[in-house]
Amino acid sequence: MISIAIYGYGNLGKGVESAILQNEDMSLFGVFTRRAPEEVKTLTNAPVYNIKDIVNYKDKIDVLVLCGGSATDLPIQTPEMAKYFNVIDSFDTHAKIPEHFDNVNKVALENKKTALISAGWDPGMFSLNRLYASSILADSNTYTFWGKGVSQGHSDAIRRIDGVLDAKQYTIPIEDALKRVRSGENPILTTKEKHLRECFVVVKDGADKEKIEKEIVTMPNYFADYETIVHFIDKEEFIKNHSGIPHGGFVICSGKTGLNKENTHVIEYSLKLDSNPEFTASVIVAYARAVYKMNKEGDYGCKTVFDVAPKYLSKLSNEEIRKNLL
Amino acid sequence: MISIAIYGYGNLGKGVESAILQNEDMSLFGVFTRRAPEEVKTLTNAPVYNIKDIVNYKDKIDVLVLCGGSATDLPIQTPEMAKYFNVIDSFDTHAKIPEHFDNVNKVALENKKTALISAGWDPGMFSLNRLYASSILADSNTYTFWGKGVSQGHSDAIRRIDGVLDAKQYTIPIEDALKRVRSGENPILTTKEKHLRECFVVVKDGADKEKIEKEIVTMPNYFADYETIVHFIDKEEFIKNHSGIPHGGFVICSGKTGLNKENTHVIEYSLKLDSNPEFTASVIVAYARAVYKMNKEGDYGCKTVFDVAPKYLSKLSNEEIRKNLL
Repeated sequence: MISIAIYGYGNLGKGVESAILQNEDMSLFGVFTRRAPEEVKTLTNAPVYNIKDIVNYKDKIDVLVLCGGSATDLPIQTPEMAKYFNVIDSFDTHAKIPEHFDNVNKVALENKKTALISAGWDPGMFSLNRLYASSILADSNTYTFWGKGVSQGHSDAIRRIDGVLDAKQYTIPIEDALKRVRSGENPILTTKEKHLRECFVVVKDGADKEKIEKEIVTMPNYFADYETIVHFIDKEEFIKNHSGIPHGGFVICSGKTGLNKENTHVIEYSLKLDSNPEFTASVIVAYARAVYKMNKEGDYGCKTVFDVAPKYLSKLSNEEIRKNLL
Repeated sequence: MISIAIYGYGNLGKGVESAILQNEDMSLFGVFTRRAPEEVKTLTNAPVYNIKDIVNYKDKIDVLVLCGGSATDLPIQTPEMAKYFNVIDSFDTHAKIPEHFDNVNKVALENKKTALISAGWDPGMFSLNRLYASSILADSNTYTFWGKGVSQGHSDAIRRIDGVLDAKQYTIPIEDALKRVRSGENPILTTKEKHLRECFVVVKDGADKEKIEKEIVTMPNYFADYETIVHFIDKEEFIKNHSGIPHGGFVICSGKTGLNKENTHVIEYSLKLDSNPEFTASVIVAYARAVYKMNKEGDYGCKTVFDVAPKYLSKLSNEEIRKNLL
């Protein structure tokens, strides 16, 4: 049994808790929190500990899953915890990945721990598919489309507008752009040419909807450059139809082969996810298994999904995967 | 530069030859053949050698790509060549993979060579996607659909019928089955419930088309259990519209997460290939790079795609892939 602990108990931590239940080679040691442990009630009644005491349990935890945010939590927590534990996080600030990698790598190597950063679906499974596709098709273009799915940042931006009670923003791939990419045409497309933004907004009684809509669609960085659709709905409809956190997207690579580039190939990977945090958690849990196995083999330091041979993700033996999945 | 040699010069060998041209970190040492070398003309004027002399060149070749058939060539050639070379093949007789793996592994380990078997798209990229998806979604079903594409075996079977001059058989996924799988319904489907077979047949003047069609659709193992559509066309149309070797398909995994399995996720990987052998060759060439790097690191023995960390496929450095693709 691989003993997993969770640090940070938000949506992602809850997703990890429930994913562990689906994997019979794993058990949940418990949840660590900065809050008062008695105030945190877990979904499965897993024990809750104060993060201050975590080092006491260092021999009882095989892999620690860090479920904090990328902005301020993980840059501190992942390297700090890699002193004592094999760790995994879902750090997703793309521009800061090299720095985070180096920080974690140094500590993990010094302490003979194995760490994996940026697990999830983007970064994560989408990154893998970008790498595989572009390595196979040397003369190709790879496109990433996000959605249909909820953008937390854009939803928050709308919620900050005066008169708005609640809001959800869906990022949606533009069908015509998808079609052009799939045809092998290799168009040049910016992010805003690939996506539109659809917003569902609940406002206070008597609020000026026209003014709010204008404020949304002209908001710099978030909406001004995009095709943006705004719907005003009531609270009941919002709760009924917009309570989930779905997401997904597409990685599409189109390339040419043949002496005269006469043949076109299209590789497409897509995700359609009812729950973004639960799917991310499922990826993390599979990679936690890999971290555990790689540490047992003496493969220390910081890793990303690019460094992990696929066999390490499976609970099956190497013989079984060759026989059943190859 | 990674020096690659090709053993066997059919469609796959030609595909490897042209794929190497697209990868600036590789060069083609030459083609080895059982035929008289002077009778083999290569696409790029690459030198042709007699296979009997191959051991003379063992210090000039980093990876030997075996392009023979799975029925009789590769079971002999791959282990034999692994005495002298790092090797890669596209062995695709699923039932015999464990035996082939063991044979190649023994020789490669004894001679400190790295060997990779069963590279391509199925086995190969489809296998990888079955493994990744089923490892992430522990409670899931994974479906493989082939096509639309040419089945060489089924085309050959039609050609053997009396009165048939030429024939091509396309395996086509059944749209309704794809739809049910994508919906997350998790249907139980046999191969014949997932695919139909469409045949384009050129017959001799005066041949009995009705009799030939009956012979096709009732042919045991090949067609009898499938929905089969037969078209009789003339030679000109055959050459114009059915000269290519397209293929492709889908790996779709649908699974549940959440304490009460309340959320459904669908992972889909698809390929749409103008040329089956050229795409297979492109996969092989990327894995040849991996074989070369893994051998340099002292990782000997037989491997499959499951054993290869994705980073080894790329011509970019680890820093570059983290920066640009993660």
